[in-house]
Amino acid sequence: MVQLNDNYLKLKAGYLFPEIGRRVKVFCEANPEAARRVIRCGIGDVTEPLPPAVIAAMHHAVDEMAARETFRGYGPEQGYEFLRHAIAQNDYRDRGIDVADDEIFVSDGSKCDCGNILDILGAGNRLGITDPVYPVYVDTNVMAGHTGEADANGTYEGIHYLPCDAGNGFVPDVPAEALDVVYLCFPNNPTGATATRAQLEAWVAYALKNKSLLLFDAAYEAYISEPGVPHSIYEIPGARDCAIEFRSFSKNGGFTGTRCGFTVVPKTLLASTASGECKPLHPLWNRRMSTKFNGVSYIVQRGAEAVYSPEGKAQVRALIDHYMGNAAILRTAAREAGLPVFGGVNAPYIWVGTPRGLTSWELFDEMLTRANVVITPGSGFGAKGEGYFRISAFNSRENVEEVARRIRTL
Amino acid sequence: MVQLNDNYLKLKAGYLFPEIGRRVKVFCEANPEAARRVIRCGIGDVTEPLPPAVIAAMHHAVDEMAARETFRGYGPEQGYEFLRHAIAQNDYRDRGIDVADDEIFVSDGSKCDCGNILDILGAGNRLGITDPVYPVYVDTNVMAGHTGEADANGTYEGIHYLPCDAGNGFVPDVPAEALDVVYLCFPNNPTGATATRAQLEAWVAYALKNKSLLLFDAAYEAYISEPGVPHSIYEIPGARDCAIEFRSFSKNGGFTGTRCGFTVVPKTLLASTASGECKPLHPLWNRRMSTKFNGVSYIVQRGAEAVYSPEGKAQVRALIDHYMGNAAILRTAAREAGLPVFGGVNAPYIWVGTPRGLTSWELFDEMLTRANVVITPGSGFGAKGEGYFRISAFNSRENVEEVARRIRTL
Repeated sequence: MVQLNDNYLKLKAGYLFPEIGRRVKVFCEANPEAARRVIRCGIGDVTEPLPPAVIAAMHHAVDEMAARETFRGYGPEQGYEFLRHAIAQNDYRDRGIDVADDEIFVSDGSKCDCGNILDILGAGNRLGITDPVYPVYVDTNVMAGHTGEADANGTYEGIHYLPCDAGNGFVPDVPAEALDVVYLCFPNNPTGATATRAQLEAWVAYALKNKSLLLFDAAYEAYISEPGVPHSIYEIPGARDCAIEFRSFSKNGGFTGTRCGFTVVPKTLLASTASGECKPLHPLWNRRMSTKFNGVSYIVQRGAEAVYSPEGKAQVRALIDHYMGNAAILRTAAREAGLPVFGGVNAPYIWVGTPRGLTSWELFDEMLTRANVVITPGSGFGAKGEGYFRISAFNSRENVEEVARRIRTL
Repeated sequence: MVQLNDNYLKLKAGYLFPEIGRRVKVFCEANPEAARRVIRCGIGDVTEPLPPAVIAAMHHAVDEMAARETFRGYGPEQGYEFLRHAIAQNDYRDRGIDVADDEIFVSDGSKCDCGNILDILGAGNRLGITDPVYPVYVDTNVMAGHTGEADANGTYEGIHYLPCDAGNGFVPDVPAEALDVVYLCFPNNPTGATATRAQLEAWVAYALKNKSLLLFDAAYEAYISEPGVPHSIYEIPGARDCAIEFRSFSKNGGFTGTRCGFTVVPKTLLASTASGECKPLHPLWNRRMSTKFNGVSYIVQRGAEAVYSPEGKAQVRALIDHYMGNAAILRTAAREAGLPVFGGVNAPYIWVGTPRGLTSWELFDEMLTRANVVITPGSGFGAKGEGYFRISAFNSRENVEEVARRIRTL
């Protein structure tokens, strides 16, 4: 008989956001009056329309698809050269970082890439994952059979958790143990923390010493407002030999529903075969993408390219400024409510301690039922997230000001 | 040290189509004069523009993304309800086939789905794969570690090959052995063959008896022109308990560069855990999609929905008629050249025996250098494809008539 992948049975409950959606739905159906007042600051989803430069580029691309002479069929699985070049030039080379066009792999989003990257890695790697963490890193490893069972806290056997709390500024210390694969995300989802140059240097030194692979998620890079904070792991010398970087158009261009991201796999990055031979990962990822993927929609790639045009850059800047203005309002409100507040300076997320010893889900339910505001419970991001909640700054100014009022009065 | 996935090292050379691209590039660079005459009938890529109904729907969706009130962020990972419903209604329920909206999972293409489906299956399943075959079925199993090494013919240990040749009309016989997972593709890529109702009934009976899973690829369903040929595996009673079906908008709506497809996972479909318990696969695929995928671009989903509008249906019909008119011309030309010809009646592919005992790649090189026509060598699809080549009917009428002339004179 056909066998299923038993590792899926180790997964705990639903993925975080579907569970939030479920609770909100139940509440709204039972309270149609309150339902109209509900403001969602839960899932980190943008709310503002796409930049006009992106809209114009996509209209143009749709028109190209309407005429035989300009129609595009299958594109390169790795992304069109026009986009790979725009990314490598603008996000890296213009900032003095050595990344070649063909080290850029365009995808339909960072979530896919973060999960799919496991395809090219072996099954026996010792994993380091921060706690709290974006749940996809954990769940995809569980699904791939890289962990044992979970305990009552949702902590999986076989993962080395790197605790992040107020004590270390939510940036994990380099561990004593030699880990093979370590996930780092800065600016961080969910805590909004950033790593300093010195902290990333310590991680690169660790990875080079232990021949580890850093999976560096920089999806929120555009929100960095303070000078001196690294935007890419490749700003650190040596990172080309130990790191893969994930980026997204979701949070700068607002592509959460349009779908585009990319992964940087340097050609200098090596991994070991079972017999101990060192081989580059770049050809493996290239093979993975050409065999299991067919490229991103041409229309969407033209939209992503427009993010790098002069108008696109100015429009994205205005979007970021809008969301970061929201973040400042929410930070102030939570602080004035007497809560411990983190993040929200270089990231669109505010990470807040719960009052009165409430658990994260207790606070979630209280915020939903009493303030009609949807937040994300910190424990959904890992055991160390218990006692915290995340507020997303992705919203209209009007909604954010209303949420700030409700937080103050609660 | 970080370990790579050693299974990738078992893969033979490049994926077929990149290798074709490489040879064409080398020829064209060395022969700039002939390069201008080259006509590509290799990769099965559409050439005609998207239907006007699709273009209009996508322009409208792009405009929705430009205004806050109609902007769409993250959509459901499984696809928007409007599209899942249109698919289930038009492709299934209107044809008397029982498929629910939430058994449809919208994706960015069948190639992705065919590979990703392995995520939810166990590692010890006995695999049945036709020979010749769409290479993705084989390569993704190799990458997932479901096979041993390949021999000199590219035949992998651990795969039960189901030979398809002129003797069985390119439809594999049900084997004596109990296999757990069997890939079937009808109308077939590359041979253009279709399975009769009786043949599919035999496969469903086999699967029910052995509790096997049929992975049924119906990407070319729209090209069926003869009455009585099944369009879906679910036309066969019992198939809901043993089959997953893959479909694509690539070859009906012309979405090869726009990217949309879907997979049908019936809720009645069970698989076994390691301990022998039967569980449904639907929740596993749902979990896979919500954890490792973020849905297809909203703009593209609106385009796919338009394929089902009255105008969309008529326009798709005209596209299919165009390509099938091409297929008829190519069939006639190859037959008049004295070659054994198969397919091209219910599929956009013509499968042709090579003359003079040439190997498939020898014929590829001869067609490229002497006729300046790019075909696909049959051996690229498996050992049993040796001595055949595939001509794609995806082209302009003008090009197809020119290819027909060159085949006759060669």
